[in-house]
Amino acid sequence: MELKPRHLLGIEGLEAGEILHLLDRAAAFKAGHGHGSLRGLVVVNLFFEASTRTRVSFEIAARRLGADPVNWTAAGSSVSKGETLFDTVRNIDAMRPAAVVIRHAAAGAALAVSRRVRCSVVNAGDGAHEHPSQALLDAFTLRAALGSLERKVVAIVGDIAHSRVARSNAFCLGTLGATVRLCGPPSLLPPGLERLGPRVEVHPRLESALEGADAVMMLRIQLERQAGGHDPRLPSRREYARLYGLGPRAAATLKPAALVLHPGPINRGVELASAVADGPRSVILDQVENGVFVRMAILHELLHERRAEGAA
Amino acid sequence: MELKPRHLLGIEGLEAGEILHLLDRAAAFKAGHGHGSLRGLVVVNLFFEASTRTRVSFEIAARRLGADPVNWTAAGSSVSKGETLFDTVRNIDAMRPAAVVIRHAAAGAALAVSRRVRCSVVNAGDGAHEHPSQALLDAFTLRAALGSLERKVVAIVGDIAHSRVARSNAFCLGTLGATVRLCGPPSLLPPGLERLGPRVEVHPRLESALEGADAVMMLRIQLERQAGGHDPRLPSRREYARLYGLGPRAAATLKPAALVLHPGPINRGVELASAVADGPRSVILDQVENGVFVRMAILHELLHERRAEGAA
Amino acid sequence: MELKPRHLLGIEGLEAGEILHLLDRAAAFKAGHGHGSLRGLVVVNLFFEASTRTRVSFEIAARRLGADPVNWTAAGSSVSKGETLFDTVRNIDAMRPAAVVIRHAAAGAALAVSRRVRCSVVNAGDGAHEHPSQALLDAFTLRAALGSLERKVVAIVGDIAHSRVARSNAFCLGTLGATVRLCGPPSLLPPGLERLGPRVEVHPRLESALEGADAVMMLRIQLERQAGGHDPRLPSRREYARLYGLGPRAAATLKPAALVLHPGPINRGVELASAVADGPRSVILDQVENGVFVRMAILHELLHERRAEGAA
Repeated sequence: MELKPRHLLGIEGLEAGEILHLLDRAAAFKAGHGHGSLRGLVVVNLFFEASTRTRVSFEIAARRLGADPVNWTAAGSSVSKGETLFDTVRNIDAMRPAAVVIRHAAAGAALAVSRRVRCSVVNAGDGAHEHPSQALLDAFTLRAALGSLERKVVAIVGDIAHSRVARSNAFCLGTLGATVRLCGPPSLLPPGLERLGPRVEVHPRLESALEGADAVMMLRIQLERQAGGHDPRLPSRREYARLYGLGPRAAATLKPAALVLHPGPINRGVELASAVADGPRSVILDQVENGVFVRMAILHELLHERRAEGAA
Repeated sequence: MELKPRHLLGIEGLEAGEILHLLDRAAAFKAGHGHGSLRGLVVVNLFFEASTRTRVSFEIAARRLGADPVNWTAAGSSVSKGETLFDTVRNIDAMRPAAVVIRHAAAGAALAVSRRVRCSVVNAGDGAHEHPSQALLDAFTLRAALGSLERKVVAIVGDIAHSRVARSNAFCLGTLGATVRLCGPPSLLPPGLERLGPRVEVHPRLESALEGADAVMMLRIQLERQAGGHDPRLPSRREYARLYGLGPRAAATLKPAALVLHPGPINRGVELASAVADGPRSVILDQVENGVFVRMAILHELLHERRAEGAA
Repeated sequence: MELKPRHLLGIEGLEAGEILHLLDRAAAFKAGHGHGSLRGLVVVNLFFEASTRTRVSFEIAARRLGADPVNWTAAGSSVSKGETLFDTVRNIDAMRPAAVVIRHAAAGAALAVSRRVRCSVVNAGDGAHEHPSQALLDAFTLRAALGSLERKVVAIVGDIAHSRVARSNAFCLGTLGATVRLCGPPSLLPPGLERLGPRVEVHPRLESALEGADAVMMLRIQLERQAGGHDPRLPSRREYARLYGLGPRAAATLKPAALVLHPGPINRGVELASAVADGPRSVILDQVENGVFVRMAILHELLHERRAEGAA
């Protein structure tokens, strides 16, 4: 990257060349080139929210580069003693890690943290704001299957209002020249979504979103957000599955070569039928596999010039 | 091993030669030979149930071989978001670990997982089914003290019905030529135990189980399984200790050279008196020490030929 | 160190030369000398109580020395199955780590553990007894700013009765020749504090404690200890802040060059105002930064001669 940024806080504002540079670097790692560039550096995974694949993926990425990952979760930490986010982060930063990979429930947490630390900050999901490494691994997976994303059409279906994955993908795919169709129940399609990028469309009906699409990304319906009782603006699970779920019948309306993606974890039988999730169109496990290489690329780009400064 | 299996799912079905080959490899590691064979490989510890010694033991074993252990526990993961076991495991597998070491409450979980992944699977305990690394470290410890296990007599005392340790040991010790006496309250001795191996005997009374035995393995009474109230089929704790616990008086009926084992954690004063647990016959801490070398042997046998394939 | 102790259980009983030797070693590590001395050794972090900075700090310190840290916490372990502290520790020890770093709620836990294991034991906090690595990093930070601590005056303010930080600092600073002023509400100043060292004074009023002090260390008021309701012996939070908190007005009575320390986590607005915590006198993040180097020094001193014995 020409700009040598210190952080990866979101996709918004990145240029196509920067994104493609990261994807090319990830492809080189996948081809087996250039491991071990970060020997002696510490990368702290700072997860204030639950995660399986993102935390493990960043941990494996750091290890494959030769860095030392250190895991920190809110459970069992001083957060239970009332410590603030910024105090926690400044304390970690004082121990001189090369980077922190942070997930937090508050939109803007990664940016706010980046202004208070010396180390690099990688946003691993901040509330409903951004999840840039997810969008990059999605773009990597799409590009590997479809070639250039210029003029491709990608539908993103689900709880658009609360999805950091949808936002980061809208920025990323739009910047790479794809048309992005955002689709979901009207109550989950807030006004102003078209401003997320030059080629963003809003589709309240699944049929129109899928028609002619090169790929469809099904989002997880975040059932745990409704723990306090059913949100009356939302359809029931069964109704949601019928209207916005991708079952065999809806999948049959896709182009033969169209791809199915999902950021996981899947609610099988709700937003995605098992027959589709495990079917030939699905590239869901490719997404996970590519995620390690994309995260290697992110850490490498942010940190490899630090190595000369020494580990201490 | 001649067979070059990809997984270690249980002891059932292993031949004596395969078991002895693993024990010999463990002995070589204990003697200080052959570390660092798995450099660059990732081993994921996937623990759906609580564990102290097994998880730490596998982690240290992986490190001593030069591999990179990655820990994952159900707490703080996407399991809390409703992800299925198979989706969790396939996601982890997509990140290309060399192996997953899995503990799960469901009997058969490790086998079912092994059919859905590319990596090696090591069963670290699946419900009441098997716990093969425990049986191998028990056999290692017994062999180190007694020499060949041919025609030796080992009593296993406790909740046989629910014990994966008892099952794996019955297969392992029987295959190595020992007589295995399974002993416990009648309600915890289900019919058909004799089918666990050629030299398995069932003893409802402790006295007959201990008589002339070369070793006795006391099982943990799983008090936490009775959280919902006392199981009326079971004796009380005090009654259990009197009838099936190994206190100084029962221990005095053992042969002078007989050994006392326990897979841990111990309920002191219930199935095992402290005087016996910490006494001269006890090889309980030898079991734990040997466990690291046995797990090194397991990981080495399953994975050392993968190293040439490269870490990525 | 001439004495070659195997454990670091507390500051009490250490001589000035031993403390200064550790501080000099830490300074050498901070200057970039002598990494990687512990390659192949396993250090187990055994935390029975929540921690952010201490656990991560020891983990990073172990990694910077080339050792392999293994984390164990009470949550998700066999402690939930009723295992005793000593059984847990003896089991870990049987796996042949070079050291365990232990935090436990019981005063004396580290000493009791050290008598039952072959590995080295580092006390990372045992109840209200000692927290030696904290006192050493405090001394390191003070010495870096003030030079020799001979005849310097350090005030320690807060819940002296329950503070292992206050106790370890009283021993450490007193041994290095400083006067230590212990200050707090009378109900938190138990009789006999003067016996903590040759130059310990007791100050029930903040004004007299601060007057002429070279540094003031504000302790965390452990609000979580009052979970069962307000302790009638204690002032309210607001009253505490007014009488014993360090706000801008109280800070203005300090000498111009006086330093402000806090072991963290801070209750902002209670014992320490944010303007002071983040102000020019504050060396709170220096404490955290120096903590890594001090812990490297501790682990190095205890373990570097073990390396020749080999990892297994």
